[in-house]
Amino acid sequence: MAFDHSKYRPFAPIRKTDRRWPDRVIESAPTWCAVDLRDGNQALIKPMNVQQKQRLFDLLVKIGVKEIEIGFPAASQPDFDFCRKLIEEERVPEDVTIQVLTQARPELIARSFEALKGARRAIVHVYNSTSTVQREQVFGMDREGIKGIAVRGAEIVKQHAEQNPQTDWTFQYSPESFTGTELDYAVEVIDAVTGVWRPDQGQRVIINLPATVEMAPPNVYADQIETICDSIRWREHVEISLHTHNDRGCGVAAAELGVMAGADRVEGTLLGNGERTGNMDLVTAAMNLYSQGVDPRLDLSGMREIIETVEACTEISTHPRHAYAGELVFTAFSGSHQDAIRKCLTQRKDGDVWNVAYLPIDPADLGRRYEEVVRINSQSGKGGVAHVLERDYRISLPRWLQIEFAQVVQREAENTGGEIDSRSIHQLFERDYLNIAAGWELHGYDLHRGDDGVEAALSFGEISLRGHGHGVVEAVVAALQQHCAAEIAVEAYDEFALGEGTAANALACIRVLINGAPFSAAALAEDTTSATLQALLSAVARAGVTSHNAAPAAATA
Amino acid sequence: MAFDHSKYRPFAPIRKTDRRWPDRVIESAPTWCAVDLRDGNQALIKPMNVQQKQRLFDLLVKIGVKEIEIGFPAASQPDFDFCRKLIEEERVPEDVTIQVLTQARPELIARSFEALKGARRAIVHVYNSTSTVQREQVFGMDREGIKGIAVRGAEIVKQHAEQNPQTDWTFQYSPESFTGTELDYAVEVIDAVTGVWRPDQGQRVIINLPATVEMAPPNVYADQIETICDSIRWREHVEISLHTHNDRGCGVAAAELGVMAGADRVEGTLLGNGERTGNMDLVTAAMNLYSQGVDPRLDLSGMREIIETVEACTEISTHPRHAYAGELVFTAFSGSHQDAIRKCLTQRKDGDVWNVAYLPIDPADLGRRYEEVVRINSQSGKGGVAHVLERDYRISLPRWLQIEFAQVVQREAENTGGEIDSRSIHQLFERDYLNIAAGWELHGYDLHRGDDGVEAALSFGEISLRGHGHGVVEAVVAALQQHCAAEIAVEAYDEFALGEGTAANALACIRVLINGAPFSAAALAEDTTSATLQALLSAVARAGVTSHNAAPAAATA
Repeated sequence: MAFDHSKYRPFAPIRKTDRRWPDRVIESAPTWCAVDLRDGNQALIKPMNVQQKQRLFDLLVKIGVKEIEIGFPAASQPDFDFCRKLIEEERVPEDVTIQVLTQARPELIARSFEALKGARRAIVHVYNSTSTVQREQVFGMDREGIKGIAVRGAEIVKQHAEQNPQTDWTFQYSPESFTGTELDYAVEVIDAVTGVWRPDQGQRVIINLPATVEMAPPNVYADQIETICDSIRWREHVEISLHTHNDRGCGVAAAELGVMAGADRVEGTLLGNGERTGNMDLVTAAMNLYSQGVDPRLDLSGMREIIETVEACTEISTHPRHAYAGELVFTAFSGSHQDAIRKCLTQRKDGDVWNVAYLPIDPADLGRRYEEVVRINSQSGKGGVAHVLERDYRISLPRWLQIEFAQVVQREAENTGGEIDSRSIHQLFERDYLNIAAGWELHGYDLHRGDDGVEAALSFGEISLRGHGHGVVEAVVAALQQHCAAEIAVEAYDEFALGEGTAANALACIRVLINGAPFSAAALAEDTTSATLQALLSAVARAGVTSHNAAPAAATA
Repeated sequence: MAFDHSKYRPFAPIRKTDRRWPDRVIESAPTWCAVDLRDGNQALIKPMNVQQKQRLFDLLVKIGVKEIEIGFPAASQPDFDFCRKLIEEERVPEDVTIQVLTQARPELIARSFEALKGARRAIVHVYNSTSTVQREQVFGMDREGIKGIAVRGAEIVKQHAEQNPQTDWTFQYSPESFTGTELDYAVEVIDAVTGVWRPDQGQRVIINLPATVEMAPPNVYADQIETICDSIRWREHVEISLHTHNDRGCGVAAAELGVMAGADRVEGTLLGNGERTGNMDLVTAAMNLYSQGVDPRLDLSGMREIIETVEACTEISTHPRHAYAGELVFTAFSGSHQDAIRKCLTQRKDGDVWNVAYLPIDPADLGRRYEEVVRINSQSGKGGVAHVLERDYRISLPRWLQIEFAQVVQREAENTGGEIDSRSIHQLFERDYLNIAAGWELHGYDLHRGDDGVEAALSFGEISLRGHGHGVVEAVVAALQQHCAAEIAVEAYDEFALGEGTAANALACIRVLINGAPFSAAALAEDTTSATLQALLSAVARAGVTSHNAAPAAATA
């Protein structure tokens, strides 16, 4: 049977009676450690060359990562060489600490110290596998044997450090495959290692607890972390570090809940590059804090540079829906979303707390443009279309015209099947509303208000007309009615002053009923009166009447 | 200031004193509802055409999704047409229920029922926005006003359903932007809606609780769900549905914890296509259950077809690290990972529970080949290289040669910078070990064992030699020592019978010290003796001795 769940066993839940993490809220960022150059690099089809490594290292420094695992120098000559380059060329800033990974084997530890020779400060990260499956199937050793490897490794690390006192050493131990390790045994191994290193006596010690493979829901990881924090010796002297992977798609969630459960430090990579499904994504984790008003202690405002650099170094492109980073993550196509975004952005004042429907983050914070937020296709509605015309052409439409014009755009989008860009929307608006038919261009007007109302004279095309009414529009409508021999009633009529810096300072939109049939038009002009009269002329023109033809087409149909 | 977290406010935690979900384990799959054709479609640059919709609908049916939201017919003519097509062409299987979304507005509800006319069974999914930001900034209405929209919508839905009794109706209500809605108010609105629909009187009712935007860590969502489940009327008659998005990268985690918190149903899309960062990924969520031994009630074994179809319909490619689906998610490049995988797979017997280090899922379950699991580059070690030679060429190397040859491969990988495929690895092995130097090809041998050991005669190239020893190898070594006037000692020597179906049935690997310097070689032959003698000849040849030159190069250096 090809697809048979019964081949798998559920992860045993942690029976906790003193669980506290679900009530915690993260109020400050953990220490971030970037493992892009190690875990990320070892998961690439084409591992990074020295130039790529240097570029990524420089980026990590630039955004503010203070601890950077730069490789596994004992297992890889390029990693060794890169480590030497950083140290010998003094490329590690004062406040940044480099970290190297090594298995807990004497010759590999020795080689790692050789790689780090002369470093101002460094973290030696030593690990061995402690899970049941690794003990039984890979190493064929019992609990004591595996613990012995860890202790012996810790001792050798300590000896090498003592022999190289010019470097400020931090020791880090990972019980690799921690999430597959019995908790009591993990505590036993950790205590044995810290028993060698004695963090209580001033040695900086990091205990890193990897979800080498994500095996259970994220709450289980948090339970494991809280249990370890409650159970190990010298908890107050040890930094608890998390290292999660994404096999169940929950690497960020596990790290967040793990920090709530007490961890001090989180290892991850930019945009989540790493073994298999990837490591925990530092960008998402940090931005999650940022969006909650917590200082992430990373500057991710140059998101474009981050994306470009990671893509250049990993040769993997960023998914368009990658949280905070993808091309589409700030975009709304849906009409109701666009409408809500438009309303919230319009009401927003500088200095307001960010509170915009459908936009958890201000795109500008990550160097993204508002232009990307609202994009139009057949799923869009009046809100989006109105937003685009306002944003790019400073054309504000009245609600009735938003509804009418959105249908025009939607039909066009349904026909073409794809996105309609801002320019095409404006062209549609010109075609259906702003366009002035031949013979209907307003040349001038004379308006005279006396006691009995307005006397209007206007000339357009080859025609000159006069009319009388209570107001200007009424007077012109009277003139046009007579001229066209049609019933003309104004149904809706709005005018707007436009922003500065444009010759056309006014927009008028009008909908008239001509012999009962509706026609709409709009016009841009230097003053509102010209705009209004031109819009009126254009609307009448749309009815198919000509200035020489008394019967409008709509009426004869 | 461009990057300023103080513009954001933290999400207020839910103060719960009766939290039970962290102790729950999911033991059966929720009802899945696929919203690919609605939420997924409305988030595409180019919305799907009818052929694409039909193809995706057919795939959803094929993998076993029983509830499918097919569109928003009242807002989109193509969605309306597709709904009619499904019904009129009888394309909805007996056990599948279609669902349509509509805002809670009378004309849109009427149009939705028009779209569904004649359906055997259908879910009418009505929603309105209830969050504070939507009430205040988008709708400008108070709590009562917004609740009124929901209740009026529910009433109209009920009326239309009563007028169309030929269809088996399910009613679904979403307080849209639920996670931004005060919980007491959400309960009030839900109770008002169910007060109209009366699930206690036999009407099937779904209450869907969207994280329209993911605003908080997943545990907060679980708290919200548990609170709603505990607080609403008629909980036992209502199906609680989840609908999460991925803005904080935790959509799957939120849905999992939400199911632990009591939900019955989960809405999502294949591979997570949807607004902005996407909807919850049905593939990941279902596979997460599968990997825990829970029947996911979806058949995802045809993962390749799923990926191809989704990519064809959405025009978005699948990220190489997408959980369960990406190209790289079953691949190990790292040497220690490869070694562990090889050992676990070797020990695994048919019918065993799956328990393989670094492989949470058997790739074969998803139609993936083991060939993809171990791929070689400069990060790989002996385990991976040995695995590839075994897997693709049935060549088993002894441990000493694994170590030696892995260094050859690693150097090559470091030089080329990329992946080394199986064929190139084999070529390297041929070049450095199997290659027979000119003049050193074995032609034949005569072996005679008497009381005083073995008398060996062998001929190779132009040469014939004789020697004597306790065993065959010793006798031949004696002959070669004399011939080359060099000290030859066998340091390591292994021979393997190969699998069937090959003319070369034996592999021998040998390492000799020639005047103290090590040289290794291997040979394939029809029998183990020939292989051994040829390997020995090749190793001696590598030392740079010629059959005419008594002093090997290594000794003269």
